[in-house]
Formats: sequence, C-alpha cells, structure tokens
Amino acid sequence: MQIAIAQLNYHIGNFEGNYQKMTRAIDEAVEQGAAVVVFAELAIVGYPPRDFLEFDDFIDRSLQVVDRLATYAKELDIGVVVGGPARNPQPEGKDLFNTAFFLYEGKIISQHGKALLPTYDIFDEYRYFEPAKRFDVVAFKGQRLAITICEDLWNVGNENPLYTINPMDDLIAQKPDVILNLSASPFDYRHAEERIATLKANVARYHLPIFYVNHTGAQTEIIFDGGSLVLNDAGYVADELPYFEELVRTYDLKDLQQAHAPRQADTVQDKAKAPLLYRALVEGIRNYFYKLGFDKAILGLSGGIDSALTLVLAAEALGADKVWAILMPSQYSSDHSVSDAEQLAKNVGCRYDIIPVQPVYDRFMEQLSPQFKDTPFGIAEENLQARTRANYLMALSNKFGYILLNTSNKSEAAVGYSTLYGDMCGGLSVIGDVYKTEVYEIARWINRNEEIIPENIITKPPSAELRPDQKDTDSLPDYDTLDPLLYNYIELRKGPKELVAMGFEKALVDRVLKLVNTSEYKRFQTPPILRVSPKAFGMGRRMPIVGKYLS
Amino acid sequence: MQIAIAQLNYHIGNFEGNYQKMTRAIDEAVEQGAAVVVFAELAIVGYPPRDFLEFDDFIDRSLQVVDRLATYAKELDIGVVVGGPARNPQPEGKDLFNTAFFLYEGKIISQHGKALLPTYDIFDEYRYFEPAKRFDVVAFKGQRLAITICEDLWNVGNENPLYTINPMDDLIAQKPDVILNLSASPFDYRHAEERIATLKANVARYHLPIFYVNHTGAQTEIIFDGGSLVLNDAGYVADELPYFEELVRTYDLKDLQQAHAPRQADTVQDKAKAPLLYRALVEGIRNYFYKLGFDKAILGLSGGIDSALTLVLAAEALGADKVWAILMPSQYSSDHSVSDAEQLAKNVGCRYDIIPVQPVYDRFMEQLSPQFKDTPFGIAEENLQARTRANYLMALSNKFGYILLNTSNKSEAAVGYSTLYGDMCGGLSVIGDVYKTEVYEIARWINRNEEIIPENIITKPPSAELRPDQKDTDSLPDYDTLDPLLYNYIELRKGPKELVAMGFEKALVDRVLKLVNTSEYKRFQTPPILRVSPKAFGMGRRMPIVGKYLS
Repeated sequence: MQIAIAQLNYHIGNFEGNYQKMTRAIDEAVEQGAAVVVFAELAIVGYPPRDFLEFDDFIDRSLQVVDRLATYAKELDIGVVVGGPARNPQPEGKDLFNTAFFLYEGKIISQHGKALLPTYDIFDEYRYFEPAKRFDVVAFKGQRLAITICEDLWNVGNENPLYTINPMDDLIAQKPDVILNLSASPFDYRHAEERIATLKANVARYHLPIFYVNHTGAQTEIIFDGGSLVLNDAGYVADELPYFEELVRTYDLKDLQQAHAPRQADTVQDKAKAPLLYRALVEGIRNYFYKLGFDKAILGLSGGIDSALTLVLAAEALGADKVWAILMPSQYSSDHSVSDAEQLAKNVGCRYDIIPVQPVYDRFMEQLSPQFKDTPFGIAEENLQARTRANYLMALSNKFGYILLNTSNKSEAAVGYSTLYGDMCGGLSVIGDVYKTEVYEIARWINRNEEIIPENIITKPPSAELRPDQKDTDSLPDYDTLDPLLYNYIELRKGPKELVAMGFEKALVDRVLKLVNTSEYKRFQTPPILRVSPKAFGMGRRMPIVGKYLS
Repeated sequence: MQIAIAQLNYHIGNFEGNYQKMTRAIDEAVEQGAAVVVFAELAIVGYPPRDFLEFDDFIDRSLQVVDRLATYAKELDIGVVVGGPARNPQPEGKDLFNTAFFLYEGKIISQHGKALLPTYDIFDEYRYFEPAKRFDVVAFKGQRLAITICEDLWNVGNENPLYTINPMDDLIAQKPDVILNLSASPFDYRHAEERIATLKANVARYHLPIFYVNHTGAQTEIIFDGGSLVLNDAGYVADELPYFEELVRTYDLKDLQQAHAPRQADTVQDKAKAPLLYRALVEGIRNYFYKLGFDKAILGLSGGIDSALTLVLAAEALGADKVWAILMPSQYSSDHSVSDAEQLAKNVGCRYDIIPVQPVYDRFMEQLSPQFKDTPFGIAEENLQARTRANYLMALSNKFGYILLNTSNKSEAAVGYSTLYGDMCGGLSVIGDVYKTEVYEIARWINRNEEIIPENIITKPPSAELRPDQKDTDSLPDYDTLDPLLYNYIELRKGPKELVAMGFEKALVDRVLKLVNTSEYKRFQTPPILRVSPKAFGMGRRMPIVGKYLS
C-alpha cells in the first residue's frame, strides 16, 4: 500500500485556508499514487488552538471541515487520516477528544482519540481534552493501521514515564502492520534527535514501521520544523522530511518491511545547532508577520550584537527592503555604535534612519525637574532613554504599519537587565530564547563566508550605553559564567544546593537566582518569545510574580 | 470533638512566613480547645505555586515545613490537617500529589491526595499532580474524618460533570462522621454563592457536616476571599467566616449533627456585588504591594472615571498618603479634566502633581518630522501622547520607588481601546476585569454617603481626550450595548450565531468580536489583572495571537 504524508503549515482557526491547503495535498497524494494520506494532529484547527476550543462555534466549524474533506476525498477514492477536535459523546469528563479521523468513501470510518495529553511546558491538553481509553486498529485495503496521536508514542521505555498507560501496548495485541502517528511536536534545538530516538524505541518494542507526520511553520511563539519521519521495521530512518518546508511524499509500505531491503543507515537532515536556530528564528518571524497580515518590520539598531542579529534574521525572513532600522544614539553612545550599525545596515541593504534621543530626553528631564531636583543620575534616567527610543519606534510603527521587533536576548530577559516599555517593547521577541553566548554562535555562523555583521560588533564588550562608559559586566557576571548558571536553573531546574555542588560560587548563585525570580514582573509583560529551547520564557514557564522563593 | 478551621493569607514560596503564621494559628486553636486544626489546600507553599513545583529544592523545603509543623503540634497535643505537595512514590505518572497531611504525635499519620485536578480557567493542576486513586477515611479520637481537597467535592450532581469519578462516593462507604475540605478557591463576584450551593449538594447526598477551609488574601491576580464554611448535616450553613480576614474559629462537631439543634437558617455574609468587588480589589492591591515589599502607588489621573475609581481603591488599600496622582493634561484635555481630577485628589487626600504633556510631545513630533512629514494626524500621534504620559509615570516610579497602577477597564481591554506602552503600562491592572458599566456601579456605591468621586466624573461622557472633542462613542458602541455583548462572548463563550439569536445586531457582533480577537497581541503584554469575574483576561483565558478565527 502507498502511504502519503502531508507536512503542512496550518493557521490557527483559519478553517478555509487550512481546508484549501489540505485539498491541494490530497490532490498531490493522489498524483503520487497514494491509497491514504496522513495529515498532522489537530491539522484542521492549527496547533495550539488554545481556548478557541471552548467555543461551540469553533468546534462546529472544525467538524464541517471534516465532512468537507470526506466528501472531497471520496471523489478521488483516497483515504484520509486527519487530526481535529471531536465532541465527547459522554456527559462525564471533558467535552472534547483530540482525535484522528479516518475518512473514506465520504464517511468517517473511525475515530482515534489521544490518550496521553501533554500538560507541561507549553502544553495544556488536559485543559480541553478527555483522555481516550479505548484503542482500535483499523483495517484498510488489506493493511491494519494503528493510528496514534503524538504523545501516545512518547511513553515508551523511559525510567520516569509521565503517564500510567501506554496505548500502543493495547494496539499491538490487535496485530497492526504499521503505526501512523499524527503529531504537533514543536521545535527546539534538540528535539529532532529526541523524536528519532523515541520513534526508534517504539520500533524496538513493536517491530513495526512508523509514519510520523508533523506540522511545519510557526504560530506566534511556537515553531514547528516539520522533520516528518518514516522508519522501517528494522528501526532505521528511511526518510526525514526537510525542515521548515511544506511537502507531500508517498512511500510503499512494503519497502519498509524487513523482508524488503531494510536500510542499514539513517537518512536524516543536518542537525548542527547554529544553522538550525537561524532557520527556526527566520521561520518564526516570517510566520508571525504572514499570519497577522503584516510584511514590514522596524527595529532599533544600537550597534550591539543583539539588534544586529535580529536585523539579519528579519531581513532573511521578510526581505531587506521590508526592514527599517532606526539608530537612536544618545550622549552616552560611543562613536562606533553608530558607525557599526550603519555598516551593518549597508551590508544587509535595508533602510536606516538616525534620530537622536537627547532632544526629547532633555525636555523630559526639564519637565520632571520639579520632582527630580537634587536626585542623582540613576536607573530612572537610564530607563528614560530606553523608553524615549521605544516611543520613536512605536510612533513609526503606528504611523507606517511596521511591526516592532524586540531584540532582547535570553540572558538579559532572565536577570531583568532591560527596561520595561523601553527595549522590552515589540510585537515579537526574536532572540528572547537565545542566550547571549548563543547569540554570538549564530552571529559567527552568519559570518562564516563573508562579514555581514561587522566584526567589531562581535568583538566589542557588550554595553547598554545608558550612562558613561557602561559595560554589561558592571552589573552582571561574564556571560560565559552567567549563561551556564542560567541554563542549569531555567532549563534543568537545579536548586541552589545543586548549583553550588556543580561548582558555581554560592554568592553568585544566590545573586543570580534572586535576579531571575524578582524579574518575573518584567517578563510577564514581555512580547511573545520565539521558542527554540526546551524551556523558553513565556507560556511554557509559569511563575508567580508575588512569590518569595529564592528572592 | 472540637474542630478548628484556620483561614489564613499565605505567601507563595515564603516557607518561613507561612510556617510562623501556621504555628500562631495552632496556638490559637489550642486556646480555643480544638482537638484538630484544619488549614487550607497547599497552605504550606501558597496557591498557586505554579512552576516552582518543578524544583526539587522547592518540594524539599515544603516537606521540611510539614515535619516542623508535626513537631510543633506534638508539644501541644493537637492534630493538624494541612495541604502541601507530596512526592509520588511510583515512577509512573506525575511526580507529585496535591496532598492533605494529617499530623499527630509528631508524625504524618496519613496522607490524602486530591483526585479531581482542576485544569481549566486559571487552574493548571494536572500540569504538576497525579490524580489520587485511593481514598481512606482516618479515625481520630472516636470520629471518622473524610479528608478531601477542594475540587474533590465539586463533581456532585451537575448535569455535565468535568470528571469521571467522585472520591466522596468511595469515602462514604467507609462511614465517615464528617467531611473536611481543604480549599484554594479563588474569589469572583458570584463564587461565594456557588460554593455554598456545591457544599449543600454534598450534604444532600452524604448527610454529613462539612468544614470547608479557604485561603484569604491575594497572590498577584488571584484573590481569595476566605468565606470558609461550616455546614451542619441538615444542610444549613452554620457559619460562613468573614471575607478577606484571617482568623481561627473552633466548632463542636456534635452541634452540627442533626440530633443536636439543627439550624433552620443559613448564617452567611452579605453578598451584594458592588461592595464585594470594592473589597476584593482593595485586597488585591494591598496584597500585591505587601507581598512584593512595596508600599507606594503612583497613577495617572485623567479626570475620567477609570483612574478615579483606581485612585479611591488604591487610597483605601495603601493609605492616601501612599498614593501619588499625576495629572498630565494635553492640548486636547478639557478644562474639567484637570479640575475634576484635582477635586478628586483633594477629596481623597493624596498628593497630586501636574505635568503637561505638550512640551515633550512637541519635541517628539519635531524629531519625527523628517519621517512624519505630510502625514495626517492619526493613531500614531494619539498613542504618542499616551506613551509620553507613561514615560513620566515610569520615570517617577523608578526614581522614587512607586509601583505604577494601571487604570484600564475590561471593556476597553477587550476591544483594544488603549495604547500599548501608554495607558496599558503598570505593575498591576486594578480594574482590568471590571466592565465599564460595573466601574460606574462601584463608583456610585463609593459615593453612597458622600461625594468622594466628583459627580461630574461619573456623569460626563467617557473620552480618551487624545484628539479634539473625542468621545469613546466615536469608536465604540455605547457601553450599555457593548458590555452585555462582551460578557456573552468572553464569560459565556457564545459564538456569532448564538449572539445574533440573542438579539445583538449582526454587524455589531462581527465588528466587536473582530476587535476582541485582533487585540490579543495587546493583552498579551498587559500587566496582571486582578481577577474578580469568572473569566478574566490573563492566565485564565489563553488565546492564540496569530489565530484567524472571527478576525
């Protein structure tokens, strides 16, 4: 049997757009000779649909698309496996199932509910869905299909399983020939390797070929890299689809069965970290703009590494002619800040304007002089500069229809080294999940063939330039020390004792953890941050603001 | 047997503070002659502890407090029932249980896990906890106690239960004499009535007295009103503890049993909406400041009703001498704006300063003239005024250690009638869950005895005053029309067809729903909003930004 997988970029709640896209994929699968085409988890509604799922109207519209797909596929005599929400017919429990619909001959032949509902990090599935308790293999054209959804294959063989059941253990008793897995499995820089390992663990246990179909594209902060997979029953990757591309590809099931030429090596995509992060961030920007109906970005270009990287990413995502850089030097800016930024804008080929901060800043200080008199220069004055810059940027954004890109990195977002309503502004935070040391890695990768980011931007010591001769290291430890500490606290959830045992200085641990925990109020108001790590600030990390733990 | 309930205001992660508070409550219970004292759900860590629960260190510290409480109570020979996280000894499933510890004679006598884990609205409990599957009554001094946690009593007798099990159905078979319920049940303006109805439904089914112990105080946006309850086994409320107060009160169990003087009327607190909202908002402000270690608030006073109400609430919460009002008239402000605001500040007795917007605004426009030339006055210019005001406020906030209060109401937050980084700034949104029509209700209640808010502020038509002769009704329908439409969409999740069937005009429905759904990007960056309704913007309403549903 020929099985097609469709790796597509859906748009949350855009029922007509998603339907049109799926019918084109059905056409393609038919041309490729497929007997059945498999779409991703919750493909009809996009992932994650979040609280739209609580609207009956939203579910009605989704179910209408299921019917329309069944009708469409009937004409072409192809089976369709597609993910969407289904109503729970029982009064007890949550109102919905996260379901795979099997469509054939104009009808819903079977429905396959998801049992393991990820409810951690960015995932909220038990908020909406009742776990399925019954699992049935479906027979189609002489093959028995075990249809599963994402997490249902992820509870196999680890030491601390998240769940108490494992649906494939039920399904295997019904002697399936193949596992289909509809997924919505977001990108992070290590996820591609993890999912291959997980699928291999499934083949090792069940000795069946697996078709794993993922989303591509991005929905606000959540990025999908595609990377859909076909494993043969010897446990080798027969194919890994290209990352960040939409495509339909068809496979002959018997080529994946051991009797027929089992592969002895994995066919996989390159997984080097810097280019993967680069592509993911570009995809994140592009989708955010496209799906909101915007095409132009504006950003403040300081001459520092963060805004430099953000500019290069934005130009790659939208085209250099759609990116507008604003240089806003103050009396504390060094000469090289402007010249480095100008050189970068020229290298990239985007428009840039220079608007000095001081005239407005001085007028602010004049107006505030009755209140500020006899107080020393401090944080208030530093922040005022950053907020004046934000006002320029937002004024231009509002006037000309640009979306402001935020340029903060993860290290400074972590310790609150940033100005709320100042450099924290923006519709989207591009590198807010990228530590400073990783910012440099990506910058160096960008410059691998030619100097796009001026070398001086990469080599000079980081500075906010909000007071004379300021350096980041005046307030913070070196990023080479800070970043590993943050990683162990944020990504790995190590406590103070564990961090000290790892060799971090106790005073530093106490100071940094306090900075992180007392900055929650700032991060609460941060723009959505493109998620590229296993633990990004945002919906995947939920912290109290008034808490008094390590603070 | 004498049973004490302790209604306390905990602080998330403040282990030492919570421990001290609980030992004082134990002392009081002993003085009152109690054999056992019951604290609230997750009392040791505060509610909601959110992702702190993912830190081993956090759980270790919590378990240390359990041990210390057991030791403390041993000296006084009292039993203690207290909520906290417990580790799941099984490798399968989530790592924690949401547990009630029964402590006596220096030991943990028994542990009672929560089975029904609210995972909707603001609740994320399945993110952290494994549902308990086993329920045991514990015998203590001749009485059999059914110890339950919050939601475990909430699956009784409704038509569409959220869960498939009901722990009390197991426990009742073990013939308990009384139900103890440890809760963390947040305030909204109708919640006090709901919980009484729910507890009565339990008594109707199980014919047992119930002790229901709630938190009081607030944790960022989530407000607890206390209102702990004692029901006798005839189904009457024997006592409802005062709202928003910390106290310990002891009851003789036999007085609650039917043979002994069953009550024929409920003993309850007043539940009128306006004063309840007033008290809840005051409590929300007070706790936010106190728990963050701040005591002074600043806000922009426009002469409109929203900032007027916010000022009165802040003065009540913190003291008028701790509140600083800034009047920032522009060339578009009407004369009465300043005079009304001044009169209000005088009535309240707080400091106020006047800082005009125009000098800075003009300088901004001058600096932006190369870019703005030949463009008409529009949104960019309106927003620039609002953002200039925010800069003043944040400068004063940063300079003198005040927290800026946000003054946006729920109606404008819903339709995005507000300026990001302008009037949307603030550490806390005080009335962001209060519709405009409710703002007026509370204001009139405040003025019930004397004119605190000048009558002209209440009667004049609402205006943002960002362009000449602007009125809210230039851009929005009357609030008397808008608010019910928003309520049906936001609180009740009605779709467009249902709204039209209810009598709302189709064009209006389409326009308003589109405004709501395309403003998600703004609300994403809003300050935390004090939650007083069943569906507030914030952690309880999770919407995609790039979605294309009704937009």
